[in-house]
Amino acid sequence: MDTLTAIRERRSVKHYDPHHTMSEAEINALLELALLSPTSFNMQNWRFVVVTDPAQKDALRAVAWNQAQVSEASITVLLCADLNAHEDAGRYWVNAPQPVQDMLVPMVAPFYENNPQLQRDEAMRSIGIAAQTLMLAAKSMGYDSCPMIGFDPVKVAEIIGLPENHIIGMMLTIGKPMKAANVRGGQLPYEDVVFRDKFPG
Amino acid sequence: MDTLTAIRERRSVKHYDPHHTMSEAEINALLELALLSPTSFNMQNWRFVVVTDPAQKDALRAVAWNQAQVSEASITVLLCADLNAHEDAGRYWVNAPQPVQDMLVPMVAPFYENNPQLQRDEAMRSIGIAAQTLMLAAKSMGYDSCPMIGFDPVKVAEIIGLPENHIIGMMLTIGKPMKAANVRGGQLPYEDVVFRDKFPG
Repeated sequence: MDTLTAIRERRSVKHYDPHHTMSEAEINALLELALLSPTSFNMQNWRFVVVTDPAQKDALRAVAWNQAQVSEASITVLLCADLNAHEDAGRYWVNAPQPVQDMLVPMVAPFYENNPQLQRDEAMRSIGIAAQTLMLAAKSMGYDSCPMIGFDPVKVAEIIGLPENHIIGMMLTIGKPMKAANVRGGQLPYEDVVFRDKFPG
Repeated sequence: MDTLTAIRERRSVKHYDPHHTMSEAEINALLELALLSPTSFNMQNWRFVVVTDPAQKDALRAVAWNQAQVSEASITVLLCADLNAHEDAGRYWVNAPQPVQDMLVPMVAPFYENNPQLQRDEAMRSIGIAAQTLMLAAKSMGYDSCPMIGFDPVKVAEIIGLPENHIIGMMLTIGKPMKAANVRGGQLPYEDVVFRDKFPG
């Protein structure tokens, strides 16, 4: 599907065919695309937990306001991040020319260390970018999606075994749509959110 | 351009044709697409400052480690967010059926108020999603892009007149590429970042 069409037609869909299964090849193709999303300093700080096990999906649904899409979607993905991804930066640049490595790699840890707010900002930023990659790729592959923050993060962390110093940024359901989304709720006027050169005084 | 191709071929490009101008129609089309990005509760908390004025671009470059792409790209976009977007939720749902409005709208403010960390998380998450919309749409329209966090946020805020209770999440350059990106720096193995059902114990 054309990119601009995918952007226009992507909508948050909450009703999925619970009998549809995504093949392993489809799941891998989708996640491989997510891994091409950009991250600051190429830190690849995201971590993806792809839930297909029905019992695990039911457990997640129970701590996500019982929203049906969590168990009825083909996959429910937890988009997480490693807050300490800046600590081992060498591996993000192994294919770069040595002078680039020598310049970039030592910059990464000092940029983030002792700055937990920046580490968390980076987690959310990377997760947001990768989430849209997944949503648009899914749309192009004939699937719909629903990004969600309506869940108990402490209980989800227990269910997925979230490691220390990791954070959950989003739950994303992906599956075959059973019912189209409603019309868009209410788009803000362009001139209220897009400005030229600076904010109006 | 096909979505999956755009995802695969999007790379961070730092060398742009400084003489290329994006038409107003192209700029508007690109930003209109960004406005179709999903946000939690449809809050549309992002605000976009599209910088085309050469003097304004030079000023930004001076506070962004003098990186050439900031002034040489056709547009440099500041992706910002209104941290108080949750306060006036009615306008995000004006087209929804009344029962939906009656249920959803009163949920929004209590979900965020008195929780500045969640407001900030939401800003970064929305900005990340919209940033990838812009990067993939730009790629499909024959442009390249470079997402950046290497700038002095206090000085950029002064230059663009950032209102109170707003935050800058990213600088994004978009223009005609003069030189392709280098090979990818070093992709982490799939099995290090994608897990099934839960994190490995």
